[in-house]
Amino acid sequence: MKTAEHISTDFHELRVHRLDMAHPGDISSLASILDTGRARAEDIVAVIGKTEGNGGVNDFTRGYFTQSLFSLLGRHLDRPAQALQEEIPCILSGGTEGVLSPHYLVFERSAATADSAAGPALAIGRALSSPVPAHEIGRWAHVQSVAETVRTALLDARIENSADVAFVQVKCPCVTSSRAQAAAAAGHTVLTADPNRSMAFARAAGAFGVALALGEIEDTAELESMMLNDFSTFSPRASISSGVEVSANEVVVLGHSAQWRGPLRMACEPMSDALDVGAVVKALAQLGLDASPQLSAADLARVAGVLVKCEPDRRGRIRGARHTMLDDTDINAQRHIRGALGGVVAAVLGNSQIFVSGGAEHQGPDGGGLVAIIASVA
Amino acid sequence: MKTAEHISTDFHELRVHRLDMAHPGDISSLASILDTGRARAEDIVAVIGKTEGNGGVNDFTRGYFTQSLFSLLGRHLDRPAQALQEEIPCILSGGTEGVLSPHYLVFERSAATADSAAGPALAIGRALSSPVPAHEIGRWAHVQSVAETVRTALLDARIENSADVAFVQVKCPCVTSSRAQAAAAAGHTVLTADPNRSMAFARAAGAFGVALALGEIEDTAELESMMLNDFSTFSPRASISSGVEVSANEVVVLGHSAQWRGPLRMACEPMSDALDVGAVVKALAQLGLDASPQLSAADLARVAGVLVKCEPDRRGRIRGARHTMLDDTDINAQRHIRGALGGVVAAVLGNSQIFVSGGAEHQGPDGGGLVAIIASVA
Amino acid sequence: MKTAEHISTDFHELRVHRLDMAHPGDISSLASILDTGRARAEDIVAVIGKTEGNGGVNDFTRGYFTQSLFSLLGRHLDRPAQALQEEIPCILSGGTEGVLSPHYLVFERSAATADSAAGPALAIGRALSSPVPAHEIGRWAHVQSVAETVRTALLDARIENSADVAFVQVKCPCVTSSRAQAAAAAGHTVLTADPNRSMAFARAAGAFGVALALGEIEDTAELESMMLNDFSTFSPRASISSGVEVSANEVVVLGHSAQWRGPLRMACEPMSDALDVGAVVKALAQLGLDASPQLSAADLARVAGVLVKCEPDRRGRIRGARHTMLDDTDINAQRHIRGALGGVVAAVLGNSQIFVSGGAEHQGPDGGGLVAIIASVA
Amino acid sequence: MKTAEHISTDFHELRVHRLDMAHPGDISSLASILDTGRARAEDIVAVIGKTEGNGGVNDFTRGYFTQSLFSLLGRHLDRPAQALQEEIPCILSGGTEGVLSPHYLVFERSAATADSAAGPALAIGRALSSPVPAHEIGRWAHVQSVAETVRTALLDARIENSADVAFVQVKCPCVTSSRAQAAAAAGHTVLTADPNRSMAFARAAGAFGVALALGEIEDTAELESMMLNDFSTFSPRASISSGVEVSANEVVVLGHSAQWRGPLRMACEPMSDALDVGAVVKALAQLGLDASPQLSAADLARVAGVLVKCEPDRRGRIRGARHTMLDDTDINAQRHIRGALGGVVAAVLGNSQIFVSGGAEHQGPDGGGLVAIIASVA
Repeated sequence: MKTAEHISTDFHELRVHRLDMAHPGDISSLASILDTGRARAEDIVAVIGKTEGNGGVNDFTRGYFTQSLFSLLGRHLDRPAQALQEEIPCILSGGTEGVLSPHYLVFERSAATADSAAGPALAIGRALSSPVPAHEIGRWAHVQSVAETVRTALLDARIENSADVAFVQVKCPCVTSSRAQAAAAAGHTVLTADPNRSMAFARAAGAFGVALALGEIEDTAELESMMLNDFSTFSPRASISSGVEVSANEVVVLGHSAQWRGPLRMACEPMSDALDVGAVVKALAQLGLDASPQLSAADLARVAGVLVKCEPDRRGRIRGARHTMLDDTDINAQRHIRGALGGVVAAVLGNSQIFVSGGAEHQGPDGGGLVAIIASVA
Repeated sequence: MKTAEHISTDFHELRVHRLDMAHPGDISSLASILDTGRARAEDIVAVIGKTEGNGGVNDFTRGYFTQSLFSLLGRHLDRPAQALQEEIPCILSGGTEGVLSPHYLVFERSAATADSAAGPALAIGRALSSPVPAHEIGRWAHVQSVAETVRTALLDARIENSADVAFVQVKCPCVTSSRAQAAAAAGHTVLTADPNRSMAFARAAGAFGVALALGEIEDTAELESMMLNDFSTFSPRASISSGVEVSANEVVVLGHSAQWRGPLRMACEPMSDALDVGAVVKALAQLGLDASPQLSAADLARVAGVLVKCEPDRRGRIRGARHTMLDDTDINAQRHIRGALGGVVAAVLGNSQIFVSGGAEHQGPDGGGLVAIIASVA
Repeated sequence: MKTAEHISTDFHELRVHRLDMAHPGDISSLASILDTGRARAEDIVAVIGKTEGNGGVNDFTRGYFTQSLFSLLGRHLDRPAQALQEEIPCILSGGTEGVLSPHYLVFERSAATADSAAGPALAIGRALSSPVPAHEIGRWAHVQSVAETVRTALLDARIENSADVAFVQVKCPCVTSSRAQAAAAAGHTVLTADPNRSMAFARAAGAFGVALALGEIEDTAELESMMLNDFSTFSPRASISSGVEVSANEVVVLGHSAQWRGPLRMACEPMSDALDVGAVVKALAQLGLDASPQLSAADLARVAGVLVKCEPDRRGRIRGARHTMLDDTDINAQRHIRGALGGVVAAVLGNSQIFVSGGAEHQGPDGGGLVAIIASVA
Repeated sequence: MKTAEHISTDFHELRVHRLDMAHPGDISSLASILDTGRARAEDIVAVIGKTEGNGGVNDFTRGYFTQSLFSLLGRHLDRPAQALQEEIPCILSGGTEGVLSPHYLVFERSAATADSAAGPALAIGRALSSPVPAHEIGRWAHVQSVAETVRTALLDARIENSADVAFVQVKCPCVTSSRAQAAAAAGHTVLTADPNRSMAFARAAGAFGVALALGEIEDTAELESMMLNDFSTFSPRASISSGVEVSANEVVVLGHSAQWRGPLRMACEPMSDALDVGAVVKALAQLGLDASPQLSAADLARVAGVLVKCEPDRRGRIRGARHTMLDDTDINAQRHIRGALGGVVAAVLGNSQIFVSGGAEHQGPDGGGLVAIIASVA
């Protein structure tokens, strides 16, 4: 007969640490909780964060943070940084426009204890694909590659039913000038050699890949033509980044599972447009949090992480009024929309450590996006 | 004995038209309401608007709009554009970052009619000073010049008690490279030849000038040292812009007066920081408007104008979390904060035609600013 | 028998005024030479200039200058500004990065006098097309429209042989977000709704249109597929701008004609890459000007205008070394290359009033561009 | 009696490797020459390079490259990266605007061999100071600290006569928002809390420090008032960078010494303004290199490194023509001028791997700067 303690070791528990950074090479907050035993390097399964770059092709803050992170973990685990980087997804979105604050979420998976709150609780799984060739980026082969990676992550998370998935975060590689050169030299044709355009296609492939893995769409190569074309097709649970610093798809799945315990739960709501503050309030309400108009300090303390995808409405209007994001040569449209959504969501939360990522193609409704919140319900 | 109709002609009534523009030279929305008789050129006393430039020294969208506006009014009134420009304040803030939408408020003053709603109602007054010499910009002489202009505007508005003043909008000139050269050639020393710094000093002088006119501070030249130095001193009702396109102070006073009739009222609330969404909700509540979490369409239709001042917290933090606005070489800090506050306020309103102006030195609490709303209460 | 004086009235003479501006609405330098009789408003046939915007879709400095220019000319000629704008090409390129100085060239055509230097001399012709529909922009119909406009301008210039053409400047309209909306509403499909991409296609169509008019290519719609695709096809004499502020093609042709007199001549050389300073030296040499390494003050005084087209090499390298212009999210690639070429050419001239325009697709060799110089040889 | 071979071991020889990078974390070119034995890690005494950031306070490409560099050297030397970083100056300037190409110069010092070309030859010395407190930055104590560090570097270089110094490169720390907070908390007053302003003061202090060490000025604290004020005082051999990533002064001295052998020589010329291409030609001529108008491939192959300091003329004009760099809110003035000078100098060289650094306060003539070239004369 199993003891209670024995039983508990069959269950997982997820912990999320939200840490600040003084600059993209500053990993001292994580070093500190590792040193004091509040976190264990071997339990870290994924990192999602925002760094203060421009979020574009030449945003090197993501690479800098990644190098710093895996250097630290390598020292703690006495393993090569490169090997860890191929195991642990580190998904970063550059750009902390406006009130947004650079920070990162460290996800720890450990055995539940007898003290763990009852489940079903928030579960995590992750997976990395093999490198995606430059000429496949943004094409159906890329969609299939993402879907396969998501399926692997679902197994890792012990989530059996795709209905229990709350949120899938993917980072996809993109084509850069040099990768386009290399592909051409090898006789391949890239979908586009324009890096910003390539990032958009990569995000589209990521969203379709998540939708495919979750059974929201069919595995039909003809759907390729819908990418960056028919924006009425979207996944309400996919959040995709793309960047020059990765060459493979990196996937983190979050959802609820009876095999996990602990106080954490997650809610994810589609946002119909950039001013859909109601979606934020609704997601909070699902977690028992009341924002009228802003969370109390006590409720805010229960929030473990907030993730937002958004985009400038491609028709150039928000609720009938013209916006200027798409025609601006000085500030990239993604920087504009991150700054705006940072304001929208931080105002409701009363806190600006929010992961806001632009480029929401096929991730939530056209012109809108989605908001996902992790909170403790205990 | 006066008839009711006769009496009514002794009263003023303010109307506010919120108009869109397709680009900074597009004045067609105003042309349209002038052509159809919904507005009369001779009744226009002031214009406040947001154009889609960068809000900095080299933002020429303001000059372009101004030239277009006065060219139109000149044709309608058969008067030289230049003469009109010296009578009618046209206060523009460049920068429609994020969701913000280019638009302008046209303020019309006419005789109240028998149908006008009872007062006291929202009143307007305006005044322009003589040109401010470059070497006085940002100094106490500038403060006194602004105060004198505000007093003239109060008389124009028939507001007798400064307690009835809701909001004072001022546009101040600044020092540009060429003006600094000219001043130096004339043997004068400018406070700073750095244009962005000069704009900050000009805004400080404007805020102190409003405070002086409203009796909030004394006329003591020693206070000059507090400007851009002691930010605990501020006016909760002053909104100051500065730009290369004006050489004199331009003042618009808004407040309530028993000599005015009509449905319009105004509320102005200080914002304690960039996330003080409670201030927005409070100002709306004073006007009988409920945002939980967003105005209904019916309530939104009652809103005639929204004006916000804001700034990136100079200590680099918002509620304890680091922000990156001040250290960004790519995007000017004012552009960052306008984009964020645009999101914060537009989310509550459900509308993005909001005048959000950066550079809130001494205008509302340090690190925050203020929000002012004009709405119909009838 | 004709007298010498009579003969001279059959000939044209071109004069070029290079004027500075203090800001994009400053037309005072032209006002001054009109007031003092150094120029006559009725003789002005074209204006080419550089304003200090960003050169992109949201560069309103061009519209501001244009409005200011035609307002002045309208007053001098007692004609509506709009009518003049449909007659006189005003071709502006935004962006004075680096050392570049805002300025404009005013081209005056008048009857030669007995004192005029002997020809053949530099001739000018201009023409404006009817508006180009948004859905034709960048397509073969656009190429044909440009070619037709160039042919009209050649007649206007009295240049009979296309071999005598030195330089053709064209400004083409582009698709903006709002024009794309309107086209879609009318059931049309635009080539691209991305404004920056549309500007590139419009420039390509302009270059092909010039080549077509000058007999460099055939009128074959199949060539449409080469635009923005096969960059080995180019015109060595075409300089194309594109901008939101025009709806029709505007063309200015410059070349040599026996029916013109005066001291002005023009040389135009293709630049093989961004560092091809030899091309600048060669063009100067054709005009009898020696730069070793820089023009003398006396030689510089003979230069009447300098026009450069350039582009960031799309392969990401210049003479084997990587450049970073194409992957920069903070500064638009065209702004980068204008700043660089401004340095390259201004260093040889010893003067920074140079018209440098980015976006050299099919205008000169791939990765390079062209340099054209007008100088007095008398 | 010493043999010839023995004598040679008393002499040093400098080698300079000019290496490219694919991104700021790419150190593979150095790894390659270390692996193949073309360079030895223990011989590396300094690195000077350009990375592709914005060159401002939030340019993290410098920190990223530095971390990557010392991680590599640490592995090769089996020493902690941190210890190496405190020995080997790594002076980076962010910003590869226009044609400029990211690259770095690796300076190797080794014993001369019997085959080494005869001296006096180019010598190198380096030194790092202790950390400069935030409240001393830009003040006379900072000047003295830099001077002391330069003197140490001169000893290291075995340069006895300051007349033999060709060029001194210094990297100085600056005040950031967070350092200003810390200083204030400790009861200190920083000269300015504006990071960009602080970087300017730090560069001024560096230039005065070099001038002090080389005997160009006296050690008089009263000179502090000249910094960023009297620009007629300058050092023609000082090149100063400032950045958030260093806390101590880092100095590299280059000059000629009879105790060094080998083919390398260096020439440094002041530039009178941004268009002083004659200075570049003159410096090349001193090294026997002829640019008319551009170096031949053979001559270019002899060039080992090019370093340029420059600044936008603070009076807003270059040779009488207005420039727009100082009033631009979209692109930082230093980015503008680097792009322009990159063009000026690269055109003469025919190569774009040039270290161009903005912020030339007191480094060369006001409004100009200086150009320094290292070349092989053998």
